[in-house]
Amino acid sequence: MNILLFDSSELQKDDSLKFGGRRAEYLADIQGVGPGEVIRVGEINGKMGYAEVHSVSNSEVQLKVQSLETESAASQVDLIVALPRPQMLKRILQTAATMGVRRLELIRSERVIKSYFSSPVLQEECIRENLLLGLEQGVSTHLPQVRVHPRFRPFVEDEVPVLLKDAPLALLAHTSAREDISELNMVERVQRDTAVLLAIGPEGGWQAHEVAAFEAAGFELCGLGQRVMRVETAVVSLLAQIDLLRKLT
Amino acid sequence: MNILLFDSSELQKDDSLKFGGRRAEYLADIQGVGPGEVIRVGEINGKMGYAEVHSVSNSEVQLKVQSLETESAASQVDLIVALPRPQMLKRILQTAATMGVRRLELIRSERVIKSYFSSPVLQEECIRENLLLGLEQGVSTHLPQVRVHPRFRPFVEDEVPVLLKDAPLALLAHTSAREDISELNMVERVQRDTAVLLAIGPEGGWQAHEVAAFEAAGFELCGLGQRVMRVETAVVSLLAQIDLLRKLT
Repeated sequence: MNILLFDSSELQKDDSLKFGGRRAEYLADIQGVGPGEVIRVGEINGKMGYAEVHSVSNSEVQLKVQSLETESAASQVDLIVALPRPQMLKRILQTAATMGVRRLELIRSERVIKSYFSSPVLQEECIRENLLLGLEQGVSTHLPQVRVHPRFRPFVEDEVPVLLKDAPLALLAHTSAREDISELNMVERVQRDTAVLLAIGPEGGWQAHEVAAFEAAGFELCGLGQRVMRVETAVVSLLAQIDLLRKLT
Repeated sequence: MNILLFDSSELQKDDSLKFGGRRAEYLADIQGVGPGEVIRVGEINGKMGYAEVHSVSNSEVQLKVQSLETESAASQVDLIVALPRPQMLKRILQTAATMGVRRLELIRSERVIKSYFSSPVLQEECIRENLLLGLEQGVSTHLPQVRVHPRFRPFVEDEVPVLLKDAPLALLAHTSAREDISELNMVERVQRDTAVLLAIGPEGGWQAHEVAAFEAAGFELCGLGQRVMRVETAVVSLLAQIDLLRKLT
């Protein structure tokens, strides 16, 4: 936990914060903070700053927020991922939050195992918990919006056009694409302040008709080099590469 | 398993291959291949090609290798990682192999928990198994060389100078570095065919005296942007970024 996050509803009028649970246990037992110490805090979907610890035990911590001034960096990437197995989904939720993903759309595709859609990891509370772990790791306050789409066609036909309005540069990661991200004039294109909509397939990849549907919806194919990566590796790899392209001078 | 790997000692004079164990179970039970099918194969640390399945059961598979012509792509990156907890180490071993890392040096640093050095994951057989899983995922044959260094100073003072001969561009990932990989003229520098020696610290980062020791040995500090990543995320992120820098046109 590199930042203590709180919901705006938790902040009292006198700028104090009081909480128990996982956060209190972590501060008390793992980090061992004591009264008078100043720690980094952030309001979920708001600003970051510092707070002074007033009292601390593993059942309750009281803080006084001193300042909330720093904006948290957003990555301007909306991510579509074919729903992975639950353990990997947890790590992808955390990583997406750590790396500042704005939206995460978890979708069905032919190679997704249907039972994954009834995994407890998809319960709202569990999604939020993993996202918060990722934000706490990444020192960020932007809670990604996560949605689950159990049907492929309605997603691509009805939802993608809406997503494209906010992220006009749409890339479909596809192992057998002819060009990869280094060959698509991406430096210029992502530096035009363009938000990116990035779609990453299941283990085994997209089916041909799925690729065709994404292409019809406006996606460009983007290879991943010669290596075939696990889904979670592909997520980090492409997010890191887009981030680098944006910053190259 | 995107490629079936074998050791040169397994290949018979008539180009046939016979094996049981995990690989046979996978081909028989998960992939369900049958006689006559042609599958991708590769010799560990050698070339890749194709083989025809002669017979298959989950206790024994017989193949006939048809061709071994394709070179496997290497990434020209040697990686130093402060030894992570065992579960994360497994994933890092797999990822390093998938992404074509040439060498992996697992080292002690002050924030590494000492008991990690007696983890069964560090046994030679377990390291090899995880590396092979990563190669099979990544369709690669280059088995990374892995070494374990339980003492920090002897590693930095005696081993790093040797490593630098093979990888002259040495980067130390460090959260509070002033410049990150996008600002170090890296496109030009990695494209001069320079192998990169990349060092990634433990959760919580390197200590100041460790940073100083690496700098004295010839490392440059390299930031990771505003986000604090888990070690395994930082590994993938930096490897992907170096790969992209090398390929940018």
